[in-house]
Amino acid sequence: MALALSLGRRGQGRVWPNPAVGCVIVQDGRIVGRGWTQDGGRPHAETEALRQAGDNARGSTAYVTLEPCVHHGKTPPCAEALVDAGVARVVVAVADNDARVDGKGLEILRAAGIEVSVGEGASEARRDHAGFFTRTEVGRPFLTLKLANSFDGRIATGTGESQWITGPEARRLVHGMRSRHDAVMVGGGTARKDDPSLTVRDLGISHQPARVVVSRRLDLPLMGKLARTASETSVILCHGADADHALQKTWRDLGATLLPCAIRGTQLDPADVLQQLGAHGLTRVFCEGGGALAASLIEADFVDELVGFTAGVVIGAEGLPGIGAMGLSKLAAAPRYALQSVRHVGADVMHIWERG
Amino acid sequence: MALALSLGRRGQGRVWPNPAVGCVIVQDGRIVGRGWTQDGGRPHAETEALRQAGDNARGSTAYVTLEPCVHHGKTPPCAEALVDAGVARVVVAVADNDARVDGKGLEILRAAGIEVSVGEGASEARRDHAGFFTRTEVGRPFLTLKLANSFDGRIATGTGESQWITGPEARRLVHGMRSRHDAVMVGGGTARKDDPSLTVRDLGISHQPARVVVSRRLDLPLMGKLARTASETSVILCHGADADHALQKTWRDLGATLLPCAIRGTQLDPADVLQQLGAHGLTRVFCEGGGALAASLIEADFVDELVGFTAGVVIGAEGLPGIGAMGLSKLAAAPRYALQSVRHVGADVMHIWERG
Repeated sequence: MALALSLGRRGQGRVWPNPAVGCVIVQDGRIVGRGWTQDGGRPHAETEALRQAGDNARGSTAYVTLEPCVHHGKTPPCAEALVDAGVARVVVAVADNDARVDGKGLEILRAAGIEVSVGEGASEARRDHAGFFTRTEVGRPFLTLKLANSFDGRIATGTGESQWITGPEARRLVHGMRSRHDAVMVGGGTARKDDPSLTVRDLGISHQPARVVVSRRLDLPLMGKLARTASETSVILCHGADADHALQKTWRDLGATLLPCAIRGTQLDPADVLQQLGAHGLTRVFCEGGGALAASLIEADFVDELVGFTAGVVIGAEGLPGIGAMGLSKLAAAPRYALQSVRHVGADVMHIWERG
Repeated sequence: MALALSLGRRGQGRVWPNPAVGCVIVQDGRIVGRGWTQDGGRPHAETEALRQAGDNARGSTAYVTLEPCVHHGKTPPCAEALVDAGVARVVVAVADNDARVDGKGLEILRAAGIEVSVGEGASEARRDHAGFFTRTEVGRPFLTLKLANSFDGRIATGTGESQWITGPEARRLVHGMRSRHDAVMVGGGTARKDDPSLTVRDLGISHQPARVVVSRRLDLPLMGKLARTASETSVILCHGADADHALQKTWRDLGATLLPCAIRGTQLDPADVLQQLGAHGLTRVFCEGGGALAASLIEADFVDELVGFTAGVVIGAEGLPGIGAMGLSKLAAAPRYALQSVRHVGADVMHIWERG
């Protein structure tokens, strides 16, 4: 199952709205098939692994990181494929919470006389499929917020200089994290100020996550990196319905996908932004700030995972805060996260927290 | 030598202005004497260890974490005591940089025919004696700055609420750190706002570090915890010569030690504050903020060690910054520190950095 989980993770960021599943088929203690959900979501992991195994699948044990599907879509259901191949035993890490599956995959297997067990590697699988599960359950993607801070919690100097607070090892790790997400997201302020490309670079990875910018008025640089590359790598703009219509058309012509979102107060409603992104199919979103967007997402309790990088540099109170104003009155009301892991990355510290 | 270093550290925070030395005497592979600098600085480690060893010192090997002293003070010099005891071999971790010793201790030993080697455990010893060395070399104490931050670098909410950002394990560790320093230091703003006692609590330790408050005008609460306990546990006030004379007298009457310091601009000059503390005998000072004092010390490059605690709580930009305004213009000019260690402490992350 450890191998199946590891294989499954290869699909993270590349298979949305599908789950990134891994499958290993074992015959007499020998691995005869290995598969993972392919780019774009198909073929499924089981299909790949069964294809590799061929006749060796008969009487074998299949390890799958998620309950096999039962619905006829673009491919026949995997549960039936496992039955047809004559697999004797199926070990499933976690059941699927998709209403179309929801235990039916296990039923089909059992009805065919296959020995089924569920739960091996469940906690790891639940983490790996968190994006898929979150979207299925509450309609929004799993949200990771990343901040690269100075020792004193600043993401830039008072004049906006932010390159570089953290070192090359941390930045490289961030590119790897981007690649395992369906989309990288920033606020309009960051898009204006930093003109980021938000792509994965220097890792020999050709697949790129979508780029999401949250900007009520779509007042984003039309000659910037995102505008220039929108026709090559997906750009998704979450904006207010009241954004200038000419701007909307311009961005559409540039190749961007526009998602009109509800407004709450003077800003885009973070709940609706995430629902729209979920409806668009995104399951794993990696938010990189800025401070205002980060604060609104934390305040509304949509941040599932916090990734902090802390560098040994001190900027002082004039520096730009990584998380903006939250209108917090009591310390007891401050959102808390539980430490998941901490280690040094090059000269910096990386600390990962999850919803407490 | 590892044991000698460990014994020596028992004296940290209790022996200033003397170094906290450890000594182990080994005869035929058997430990016959162990000693460390006693409270207040005397007896010295070697004296203690030789006393324990008695006649067994003859022909033995002595491990000492610092070059034995040669000056006749309140006790006879340790170099002579080792010679007189008939020790055959002395292993010294680091030479003493005190002008009164400075190699003479080793000379005396060698002249008496004792085999001397220097350097075992040197890097650890240099760290342990950093306070003593810093004071001897530049006249000021070794300075550690500690900050207990939220994930976003805040030490309190906008309304000043700071209890508690970090958990009980981190706070307990901080009390242990206090106990290994000669003094705990805060700025006047923190003394006014938090009314801290700055004592070591709940560790079964009766020895208390001195409490230092840096306050130009001495406008500190006269009914606060520091004022009430100044006659029991040392309170040292660094103030401007222009501070109200009646207030100076009041604090003196309460039992505080007053150190007038030079003024630079509108604030106390951090360089002179530290020189005065050094002249008073302090070798290891543990600064716990607040933001303005921390910023002035970092800006002037007097912080030798940064200890950060990061909690998984988010306060937002209205929160109080751990490090105040520094007037930094360029990121390249921001002070950098090198990561020394990182680990989790209870639910929090502790990261320690040293001057880069």
